[in-house]
Amino acid sequence: MSDNPMKLVVVGAAGRMGQTLIRVIHETGGAVLHAAIEREGSPFVGKDAGEIAGVGNLGVPMTVDPLQAFVDADGVLDFTSPAASVAFAGLAAQARIVHVIGTTGCSSGDEEKIRAAARHARIIKSGNMSLGVNLLGVLVEQAARALDPAQWDIEVLEMHHKHKVDAPSGTALLLGQAAAQGRGIDMLANAVKVRDGHTGAREAGTIGFATLRGGSIVGDHSVLFAGEGELVTLSHNALDRSIFARGAVTAALWGRERKPGLYDMLDVLGLNN
Amino acid sequence: MSDNPMKLVVVGAAGRMGQTLIRVIHETGGAVLHAAIEREGSPFVGKDAGEIAGVGNLGVPMTVDPLQAFVDADGVLDFTSPAASVAFAGLAAQARIVHVIGTTGCSSGDEEKIRAAARHARIIKSGNMSLGVNLLGVLVEQAARALDPAQWDIEVLEMHHKHKVDAPSGTALLLGQAAAQGRGIDMLANAVKVRDGHTGAREAGTIGFATLRGGSIVGDHSVLFAGEGELVTLSHNALDRSIFARGAVTAALWGRERKPGLYDMLDVLGLNN
Amino acid sequence: MSDNPMKLVVVGAAGRMGQTLIRVIHETGGAVLHAAIEREGSPFVGKDAGEIAGVGNLGVPMTVDPLQAFVDADGVLDFTSPAASVAFAGLAAQARIVHVIGTTGCSSGDEEKIRAAARHARIIKSGNMSLGVNLLGVLVEQAARALDPAQWDIEVLEMHHKHKVDAPSGTALLLGQAAAQGRGIDMLANAVKVRDGHTGAREAGTIGFATLRGGSIVGDHSVLFAGEGELVTLSHNALDRSIFARGAVTAALWGRERKPGLYDMLDVLGLNN
Amino acid sequence: MSDNPMKLVVVGAAGRMGQTLIRVIHETGGAVLHAAIEREGSPFVGKDAGEIAGVGNLGVPMTVDPLQAFVDADGVLDFTSPAASVAFAGLAAQARIVHVIGTTGCSSGDEEKIRAAARHARIIKSGNMSLGVNLLGVLVEQAARALDPAQWDIEVLEMHHKHKVDAPSGTALLLGQAAAQGRGIDMLANAVKVRDGHTGAREAGTIGFATLRGGSIVGDHSVLFAGEGELVTLSHNALDRSIFARGAVTAALWGRERKPGLYDMLDVLGLNN
Repeated sequence: MSDNPMKLVVVGAAGRMGQTLIRVIHETGGAVLHAAIEREGSPFVGKDAGEIAGVGNLGVPMTVDPLQAFVDADGVLDFTSPAASVAFAGLAAQARIVHVIGTTGCSSGDEEKIRAAARHARIIKSGNMSLGVNLLGVLVEQAARALDPAQWDIEVLEMHHKHKVDAPSGTALLLGQAAAQGRGIDMLANAVKVRDGHTGAREAGTIGFATLRGGSIVGDHSVLFAGEGELVTLSHNALDRSIFARGAVTAALWGRERKPGLYDMLDVLGLNN
Repeated sequence: MSDNPMKLVVVGAAGRMGQTLIRVIHETGGAVLHAAIEREGSPFVGKDAGEIAGVGNLGVPMTVDPLQAFVDADGVLDFTSPAASVAFAGLAAQARIVHVIGTTGCSSGDEEKIRAAARHARIIKSGNMSLGVNLLGVLVEQAARALDPAQWDIEVLEMHHKHKVDAPSGTALLLGQAAAQGRGIDMLANAVKVRDGHTGAREAGTIGFATLRGGSIVGDHSVLFAGEGELVTLSHNALDRSIFARGAVTAALWGRERKPGLYDMLDVLGLNN
Repeated sequence: MSDNPMKLVVVGAAGRMGQTLIRVIHETGGAVLHAAIEREGSPFVGKDAGEIAGVGNLGVPMTVDPLQAFVDADGVLDFTSPAASVAFAGLAAQARIVHVIGTTGCSSGDEEKIRAAARHARIIKSGNMSLGVNLLGVLVEQAARALDPAQWDIEVLEMHHKHKVDAPSGTALLLGQAAAQGRGIDMLANAVKVRDGHTGAREAGTIGFATLRGGSIVGDHSVLFAGEGELVTLSHNALDRSIFARGAVTAALWGRERKPGLYDMLDVLGLNN
Repeated sequence: MSDNPMKLVVVGAAGRMGQTLIRVIHETGGAVLHAAIEREGSPFVGKDAGEIAGVGNLGVPMTVDPLQAFVDADGVLDFTSPAASVAFAGLAAQARIVHVIGTTGCSSGDEEKIRAAARHARIIKSGNMSLGVNLLGVLVEQAARALDPAQWDIEVLEMHHKHKVDAPSGTALLLGQAAAQGRGIDMLANAVKVRDGHTGAREAGTIGFATLRGGSIVGDHSVLFAGEGELVTLSHNALDRSIFARGAVTAALWGRERKPGLYDMLDVLGLNN
């Protein structure tokens, strides 16, 4: 049965992420676009999802009824809003399908409802759907655990495009957090985010952050472990924004053969134990 | 009792590695040079080990009798030859001390004798004593296991000084081996070491190697995992040759509190499970 | 008068590069799409250029008559074929406008005709329209000239996506050529493109090439100058394919204020002297 | 006559830099240690310069009389103090030899006296004797001049060992200065040295600085030029501290064939025009 391509529903299908999801499904062997859901009143309802996404007519008009779409589907890809994701999780549970949630900003109440839905749905939820970033976090934690803080200094470097308005990036902080967890320390209490002028020597055990901004860089992150006479560097470069959609589709395919439950990207990578 | 600095013996003490070991012990809190052993007939016998190593008089003349040196010592650091290391392992077992072996080229017979000695000695043995390289190997294996070969391409890049006469480096092959192990494939059967002219598209599942040579680079290694739209890079830079001595001293200090047995650098890093 | 946006014609407008040019013009202040030319019989004739390029209706239908388009235009952007580019150059000369030629593979006869056209047209022609790559070539030549070959080793490293079928890349060879020119040597006679097994020590004066392949990397190039104790690295990373279109538009804007003549991207960068 | 090795005097010969100079001369074909000068009263006077520097007996005892040493020498290498360097310049002028000055902190009065001495001596003076860093500065200035500030963002990244007490490094500021000069702007007025929290989008025309600290990194510097869709990176890695001594010896050999005058490292690199 799993020889059939996995039938996937995209919700929020006409948005930027929705379109990217449609394109990635279209390129992925083993997956097929089953339905594309927009909210009622959207000007895209009735238009062909493939044409909106720029991959040519797919014979899948955008519709407004998720339940009807879910019934015959194998999974749903969802980068929408907390309230919508909670509702979709309930429907996915009814339909007993895979629900990949890339939505951020869920409250603890939302999380609880999603957990409840995961008794019947196979839900994979992550704040960052990139396989590479999730892998990097695991490797950073492990390296930080293995290397003696008295002898190895940890630095997190990131670069993003010139339009980014905050620093360090959320992913840089997440990687710093992974390093701190590996060392069993509190990240914020040990973070050094500014170095300018007379700084004094570097304090052992701190985690430094440095930020570059420029051009159209999608997102580069490196975690450096600097010891006496050697340097270990673990890096991720995002080359285009489709990696989040790609990770979501990979998660859906992975989820097809699982039991109901709540999973994250580390499960998909086989790195949770 | 372990508040006392660990008393370390260096064998092959007047050689290049022996001298580096003496300097690193001298710089390391928690360790002290207890004896420096040279082979009988060496012109250095009787000279002060610290003066030979360039750190000033340490009051430790080079001597020729390892057993006498081991009796009151806590550990021995050994980058010599297979035959010598086997003999030293036997003496370390008698003295019930730590024996760090960085010697390469041991036969399976040698390995067996060393394993036998490890019933009484705490032996840490590795072909590469750098903490960073050992850590990198573990992370590479893990990343290779997590990432789908159909979607992620693995490349190993290394750079060494202009005097190096072979390519790829032993460490590059070791990292390629770690990647192959993560994927459960045979490394040599999947290695691509030459690309020149019309190569055709890259074959999925292969492991590529690329080599740079120039200047006085001690040893840089990177393993790249290239997916659609993202790149994960795991790198090690050796900045000076003392890292192997440093790793050996770290291993000795770690071994002090262990039970007799045969360990490797992954044990020291806490990465064997 | 140059306060008016520059009116640009795109030839080969429905092709991949033509569409990219239309998008870049659309984003660029100071430039406006004046006409979009396709060959007679193309199914795109009559369709709106902006819709084909995915930026929405621009009110510019694709047409087939270049001369009519050139008459009221300020410049033409051309990544087509040698024969077509030669013809367009003649028309650009009649219209006395700017002609940016990114077409490759021109014969010496073609080049001569283009040179003739440049008596009346302002022609900017280059095999690689990326500003960054052209700049890098100049810097590499200069560094190679300044650094003593007996003491500095030159290596060229490139990485491209897994679909690329040849190695090293044309740009890598071009950078090697720039290095060779700086040293006043023949590049091919001094190139080392394969290192595998027992290579012997690096020969002074050679230029090494190393190739990585994987994922979707658009094109990364580094030239390393490795001396005793120090390393100078000059790198270019192409993040998306639009940089060639972007360079062409920059060249057109630069050409608007020039006298008739034949120019290249170094002129645009102000690096020819 | 220049087939004879160049006879070089080291002043401040027993200091850390003096010893490095002696080692580098010893390794350099075409140069020979002629004399080693220490200040009167130094405990090293009379000892062999080679033994102090760790390269074995060279038959050159440390002495205190520079004039006597200079008379038969071809050049002098000097990383001492402003007052001493001014005095040595006068003696070098009398002896009509090459004087390489790496001393920093000279007043304008000192500079004037050195300039006066350069009527008879061939003086090469620079605040940073690394060939690579000097080259990088020239390339950065040129790249900054060529690339439109509205479209290319400049960032300077540096990493140094954990003991460094200030940020950004002097060399990072020097490279930022070179970039500013290429753009014809004031560096300090356009520098952004801190990014933390809500920074807003990057302002065009600024020059960003980012600082990493850790381990035993001797000194890594990169200048990034980030445009839309492409990135040009110019980097220097110092692998050991001997590069400054090496640059000084290279400068001396270069100066041997020059006319009297005041030169800098860009002259040695052939990059002043």
